[in-house]
Amino acid sequence: MAKEQAGGKGGNSSAAPKSAITPTRAEDYAEWYQQVVRAADLAENSPVRGCMVIKPWGYAIWENIQRELDAMFKATGHKNAYFPLFIPKSFLEKEAEHVEGFAKECAVVTHHRLVKDPKGDGLIPDPEAELEEPLVVRPTSETIIGAAFASWVQSYRDLPLLINQWANVVRWELRTRLFLRTAEFLWQEGHTAHATAEEAREETMKMLGVYATFAEDFMAMPVLRGPKTAGERFPGAVDTYAIEAMMQDRKALQAGTSHFLGQNFAKASGIEFQTKEETRSFAWTTSWGVSTRLVGGLIMTHADDDGLVLPPRLAPAHVAILPVFRGDDTKAKVMEYIESLAKELRAQTFGGRKVEVEIDARDIRGGDKTWEWVKKGVPLRVEIGPRDVDSGGAMVARRDRGSKDKTVMTRADLVAQVSSILEDMQAGLLAKARANRDENTRALDTRAEFDAFFTPKNEKAIHGGFALSHWCGKGTCETAIKDALKVTIRCIPEGGFAGAPWESKLHEQGACIVCGESSDRRVVFAKSY
Amino acid sequence: MAKEQAGGKGGNSSAAPKSAITPTRAEDYAEWYQQVVRAADLAENSPVRGCMVIKPWGYAIWENIQRELDAMFKATGHKNAYFPLFIPKSFLEKEAEHVEGFAKECAVVTHHRLVKDPKGDGLIPDPEAELEEPLVVRPTSETIIGAAFASWVQSYRDLPLLINQWANVVRWELRTRLFLRTAEFLWQEGHTAHATAEEAREETMKMLGVYATFAEDFMAMPVLRGPKTAGERFPGAVDTYAIEAMMQDRKALQAGTSHFLGQNFAKASGIEFQTKEETRSFAWTTSWGVSTRLVGGLIMTHADDDGLVLPPRLAPAHVAILPVFRGDDTKAKVMEYIESLAKELRAQTFGGRKVEVEIDARDIRGGDKTWEWVKKGVPLRVEIGPRDVDSGGAMVARRDRGSKDKTVMTRADLVAQVSSILEDMQAGLLAKARANRDENTRALDTRAEFDAFFTPKNEKAIHGGFALSHWCGKGTCETAIKDALKVTIRCIPEGGFAGAPWESKLHEQGACIVCGESSDRRVVFAKSY
Repeated sequence: MAKEQAGGKGGNSSAAPKSAITPTRAEDYAEWYQQVVRAADLAENSPVRGCMVIKPWGYAIWENIQRELDAMFKATGHKNAYFPLFIPKSFLEKEAEHVEGFAKECAVVTHHRLVKDPKGDGLIPDPEAELEEPLVVRPTSETIIGAAFASWVQSYRDLPLLINQWANVVRWELRTRLFLRTAEFLWQEGHTAHATAEEAREETMKMLGVYATFAEDFMAMPVLRGPKTAGERFPGAVDTYAIEAMMQDRKALQAGTSHFLGQNFAKASGIEFQTKEETRSFAWTTSWGVSTRLVGGLIMTHADDDGLVLPPRLAPAHVAILPVFRGDDTKAKVMEYIESLAKELRAQTFGGRKVEVEIDARDIRGGDKTWEWVKKGVPLRVEIGPRDVDSGGAMVARRDRGSKDKTVMTRADLVAQVSSILEDMQAGLLAKARANRDENTRALDTRAEFDAFFTPKNEKAIHGGFALSHWCGKGTCETAIKDALKVTIRCIPEGGFAGAPWESKLHEQGACIVCGESSDRRVVFAKSY
Repeated sequence: MAKEQAGGKGGNSSAAPKSAITPTRAEDYAEWYQQVVRAADLAENSPVRGCMVIKPWGYAIWENIQRELDAMFKATGHKNAYFPLFIPKSFLEKEAEHVEGFAKECAVVTHHRLVKDPKGDGLIPDPEAELEEPLVVRPTSETIIGAAFASWVQSYRDLPLLINQWANVVRWELRTRLFLRTAEFLWQEGHTAHATAEEAREETMKMLGVYATFAEDFMAMPVLRGPKTAGERFPGAVDTYAIEAMMQDRKALQAGTSHFLGQNFAKASGIEFQTKEETRSFAWTTSWGVSTRLVGGLIMTHADDDGLVLPPRLAPAHVAILPVFRGDDTKAKVMEYIESLAKELRAQTFGGRKVEVEIDARDIRGGDKTWEWVKKGVPLRVEIGPRDVDSGGAMVARRDRGSKDKTVMTRADLVAQVSSILEDMQAGLLAKARANRDENTRALDTRAEFDAFFTPKNEKAIHGGFALSHWCGKGTCETAIKDALKVTIRCIPEGGFAGAPWESKLHEQGACIVCGESSDRRVVFAKSY
């Protein structure tokens, strides 16, 4: 079988598939994504429309994301708390733009009991148990957290108030895709209140910076950052900032947002305090969040046609050791060697935690087992057979070098170098993703070029990527592009360039790509998830 | 002020309250509990009926509980995953006893959009957006996880399947109390599937053991463990086992449950597999859970009339260092000393993690500050003034010795002994709680004694505690006691005695406390939360 061959177990086949994932990225990127998620056993659709089941390997990636982000939030002075799942309808109504943004797609709780249907067999919501006021399952928590803040904040001494919540939220999306857009998703939402606008703006930018650092240092996913246009703001925000990453199909993924809310929600919720000068003032608030969508971003940044490729810093396991037996007589010898090798590897550290090793001694065909770990994206596969035991060696395969990579190393070298190999992989994945982004980011000055850039040359081809073009600032021009090409302004880029060749072009003078009005900076146009 | 006096800042008052919490435990236990929660800033009621806001200090305790339990679950081979918040009504209906148990008190989602009320100003659930099938916000996840397991389990090779979920759940309780009983609560729910009844029973007992170990080793809360009677089983379970702890008012708190579900849910959900012998069989499943209720148990086990007392292993901070300034001229000297002391303390470990130190340099009155930390239950308070800096000392107060404890230690001794002091406190809290339980646990053989035990001598007094009495096994006798005294059988005790003086009486022969039929073992009767 071809899979065995690639897994190094010998054998031949004329019907070798060209990759473990069908279709490939080039053939059908959207379907490739679904198949990578399935092949890596990350998540699946549930019987509840739009809600996913996050399976152990996918959830372990999310746990790693949580652990690292949580440490970064705590290091910047935030504390975790927990607020109700339900938001009374009247709370949502307090902020006009906010309710406008979320009322259209929310899960509404109207009853608190089911009773036997008098007309049939099953159960129905009990008409006697209808709620006086419907409750909405939180789509985000500004209003319910605002109500708590209003009672917590009395004086300037109570500020700043720096809170984060890890929670599930629900937005009734019609078209869902695992991790990228689901009705229920897991996220964190930071909510802070400050005495001055300046401090709140500083917080907004600080957390945007935390997200950018996390994306690059842990996810190996380069991001541009900057404010959104008015049309793309969070409902109720004064300013929304985002980190935006380029996926391998050159679409943008909004990977995190940080909002300066001004006094809008403070006024809606009554977060008022006594200033140092003994006057009364509404607080200035922020909110910021990232979600399980990041797992989707990680997949689409690094996975290849053989499945997932995990950045080592977020991998649930760094090394999978696979025993290769010839028969039961060699099993004990091989397993003993593996156990002691695993112990030595686990004594090494990488990225501030112990190197995580999984020994996969399941009794299944070696080729299938190898391919499972390829598709799961484990950074290092180590195969150990009787000859490796005799020679004190190991067959080591780096996932970032494709599914067919193999290197014979001595055991001592493997243990000594495991951390640096993982560091090298982490850096390599970031560099590769950055090269892909920079290669597919173009400064475009004419509408013809722009239209061509976003129009694939043929059915199989993908469009150009990120266009850095001039925009006059008017919503009508933004909408014209969106309607014509399904292309939006992802952000007005302020950082995350990392010395990209096009950086110098950002502040050139030019003319709006739509109306021709003069403009002194380019913005990032892209198709997006 | 009295509080300052107790805090050691001098001053006098004739109106000294006798404790920081009003009322005291003896005066009104239920109200004392609410006031401890408030004074320690753990949680508060939210505007959403029955839902609480868990504040940072309370949430940090829950995070510590999560971290330790999660490690124990992983060490016993379980993996985390995440399943949908919503359960289709038809899923809940699959298991007859289960739906009977939960339909009466569940949040029902009926619509997925709000629209402007044509008759008024506000929003109403959009009649055009009514769901075809109502969704229930999960009260527990056997049925929705069962649906996933049904597709994951095909062969005996897929078993055992050992999954845990950390999640929020909703049960529409009418009478709620912070942490102890709330409409929404946070919990973990383990769900496992096995090839044989024997293995599933083994898992049920193993996880009950994990809970008991956690309760005693981390919460310093001694627990009895054993099966529940048929009348107290989880809806749909074949057997329910529980850990039961005695609170300071001598009521029982069911702190965790582990259920052997037989094949009931496997049949309801279709979890069927091919056996080694190539026959088809339904799997045997278990579920087990603990919740934020544990925080309530921790409070009611250890807190005193001055507020919370935290077992060091779950304390968000082990040490609070409070600077005592005479004026700004000594501030720099004191703070420098404190920073370096904190650094030395943080280099120590306790219970496998670093000693956590908070420096509270807020500009508020020293007495108020001291009392805040007393009420928050931080294990060690360390006060440092200019004289301590000069002498190389520290004023150390152990929370388990009451609010007025003070010892002068050298800085070197404090650093060298901090871990062992915390260990001593942890052990002391467990011993004290165990003594309280054993002192208030009685083997009672006559109905007259039994009735007297559960009838407080006067309005201010509390009842006796745990009664070890004979029971014939009949539901009618169990109900008679419940109706007469609001006393239930907490469990048929099988472990957790720890050499209690009454242990030898458990297996004496006797007669049912109600009907007089012969019985060969005693069960635990108690009032409960």
